[in-house]
Amino acid sequence: MSQPLSPSGKHNLILAVNAGSSSLKVAVFKANSPPVRVASAKVERIGARDTQITFMVGGEASRSEAVLASSHDDALAAIMYRVQERICASSLIGVGHRLVHGGPNHSASEVITPELLDDIRQLEIYDPEHLPSELQVIESLQRRLSGIPHVACFDTAFHHDLPAVARRLPLPRRLDALGIRRYGFHGLSYAYLMDHLARLDYGESRGRIVLAHLGNGASLAAVRDGKPIDTSMAFTPAAGIPMSTRSGDIDPGLIEYLLRAAGMTVQEFNRIVHLESGLLGVSETSGDMELLLEREHEDARAGEAVAIFCYHVRKYIGAYAAAMGGLDTLVFAGGIGERAAEVRFQICTELRFLGIELDATSNRDNADLISSGVLPVNVRVIATDEELMIARDVINAIG
Amino acid sequence: MSQPLSPSGKHNLILAVNAGSSSLKVAVFKANSPPVRVASAKVERIGARDTQITFMVGGEASRSEAVLASSHDDALAAIMYRVQERICASSLIGVGHRLVHGGPNHSASEVITPELLDDIRQLEIYDPEHLPSELQVIESLQRRLSGIPHVACFDTAFHHDLPAVARRLPLPRRLDALGIRRYGFHGLSYAYLMDHLARLDYGESRGRIVLAHLGNGASLAAVRDGKPIDTSMAFTPAAGIPMSTRSGDIDPGLIEYLLRAAGMTVQEFNRIVHLESGLLGVSETSGDMELLLEREHEDARAGEAVAIFCYHVRKYIGAYAAAMGGLDTLVFAGGIGERAAEVRFQICTELRFLGIELDATSNRDNADLISSGVLPVNVRVIATDEELMIARDVINAIG
Repeated sequence: MSQPLSPSGKHNLILAVNAGSSSLKVAVFKANSPPVRVASAKVERIGARDTQITFMVGGEASRSEAVLASSHDDALAAIMYRVQERICASSLIGVGHRLVHGGPNHSASEVITPELLDDIRQLEIYDPEHLPSELQVIESLQRRLSGIPHVACFDTAFHHDLPAVARRLPLPRRLDALGIRRYGFHGLSYAYLMDHLARLDYGESRGRIVLAHLGNGASLAAVRDGKPIDTSMAFTPAAGIPMSTRSGDIDPGLIEYLLRAAGMTVQEFNRIVHLESGLLGVSETSGDMELLLEREHEDARAGEAVAIFCYHVRKYIGAYAAAMGGLDTLVFAGGIGERAAEVRFQICTELRFLGIELDATSNRDNADLISSGVLPVNVRVIATDEELMIARDVINAIG
Repeated sequence: MSQPLSPSGKHNLILAVNAGSSSLKVAVFKANSPPVRVASAKVERIGARDTQITFMVGGEASRSEAVLASSHDDALAAIMYRVQERICASSLIGVGHRLVHGGPNHSASEVITPELLDDIRQLEIYDPEHLPSELQVIESLQRRLSGIPHVACFDTAFHHDLPAVARRLPLPRRLDALGIRRYGFHGLSYAYLMDHLARLDYGESRGRIVLAHLGNGASLAAVRDGKPIDTSMAFTPAAGIPMSTRSGDIDPGLIEYLLRAAGMTVQEFNRIVHLESGLLGVSETSGDMELLLEREHEDARAGEAVAIFCYHVRKYIGAYAAAMGGLDTLVFAGGIGERAAEVRFQICTELRFLGIELDATSNRDNADLISSGVLPVNVRVIATDEELMIARDVINAIG
């Protein structure tokens, strides 16, 4: 057996847990500033036939293998089995959990108490799809790793103090009582990007910035003087731009039409806007940007899906420049943002008037800085790291 | 009795008819190029207690009086009674009717035949609120004014050939069969604005233009090289920016929440997004921009309603600049766009980066050109005239 990464007695590791709807990602960090990742593991397609675990410890190459996991609890067991082969549980000083929704009252990460857990259970109504499995993981890990603090890291916290014009949805004010507002999501990713940018160039990080987190779920955020100004997701992560299978914002008049003229039920409508729209709906073949880019020139529908995605992102960049009085930095992140040069290229077409010009070679190579340097806007590619933000928040929360 | 405006025997008048959900506007034009308005009449608040008729003939001052009109047919009778006092029906050479929706197949105004009427009846499914009363008016006027051509002028026609990225909503492609696409509305107004701009400065009218038609219903359109590029209303006029009582685009995840957590019905949801949102929903007092501007400084909710409206319009201007690669001309029209200097001012704040700077005095005076002349974008106020476009289309359709 290999050498344990933290010899017994050196209590300086943080466990970061990121549970998605059908995935579970866990990472271990040394509690430095910034935290240093020493191990990662993820289980994908939980509950499907081809569930897979991938893990990486120390500087070794990552390994993937099939695993049986019909629930998040199974996935957690599979991950912790592998992590604990190499990392002594007694070296852990804290555990951080990503929670998709913090509701109206949680503006920062918090140490989990029984009261906070009760409070989070009340939030399930905001996201009945994700919060229950996230709570299941928290409770399970609290039993496995008792005696150390667990910290809740809310994906909505970053956007908690949006200006009223962005926070308030143009609906009857009485709905405030139902907690309806723009929450925004991908907050841990945005916090990481801002943190990383501040380390690269503090002055730049105080400018007018658009962050584009483009993955299967995709959103944009506007940040000025370090303060969040707006974001494309709203009350739920279904809002904003078209995504892998989500429609993004829609015409409210469509619902009545689909129910009346097409005889749909509300359940069918929900399935369509969450699971059958966006890239998948337009292409009719896939919600996976990588596949669509391969087919772009032989299947007009794939090309149209890519073009629509890029067009909506481009319009949001223009809209957020208008919200901030201009633009200094554009950051691409997320699976698509970090790896799809063609998407970044299509998005930035026509944006010279904003001061954006890409360098073709840097863009093709997914370089850190992909703008040409001729026009004033810095365009950057930053590999986002939500787990690192979780670890940082744990360190901050436990002092 | 006064002198008839067109002496018998001079057959050169066009009647333009514009039926709204609770209003009916009619205008008479001499069939010149461009058409010249000789009379106008409108009945407002049809079916309410305080129904009112306003009419103006020749160069006389307009007069308003109470009228009994419980239906569009009553309103039409009241209007035609007054019009025919001064205008000989035999002078009319054509009648034009505004129709809110042309469905997928009508890209221009058309002479109404029995087949076209049948076709329009099929379109009622797209807009069951407005099309039935519009059809009622057409049939009634065809009986009153038989023997001359009647022409259907579709408010969607202007946007018929939008580029695919704007036309296609990011929903499953199979929904194309239900006629789902971005139609866009206010097309007669946009056609007028472009026509007027071309007369002012043809070169400018071929540039990159954002048209903002801001009234109780409000939308924006992007036009480049004379071709419509995008528009904020979509399948229905409920989409886009917040309006007097409409929400504009929404988070599709909200519907499920409102139905599940708040126990709403789909009918209640529809009422909210059409009748209780936007300016009214945010202010809780009024959907009338003029009233809200009066209260802006004493009622924070009124100020917030105004600010949210302006913020959304500003973001659309930025988004459309991004769609077109920049901006040359911004046009304000509609009741709010033509008269609310404060709204134009708030919208244009922060848009210097686009080349927009208002001249405070010209803006306050609702002048035709309100930009300062220092930065490159021309900002214009144009009093839109849908009835004039209807008259022009009648002349074109009947040759």
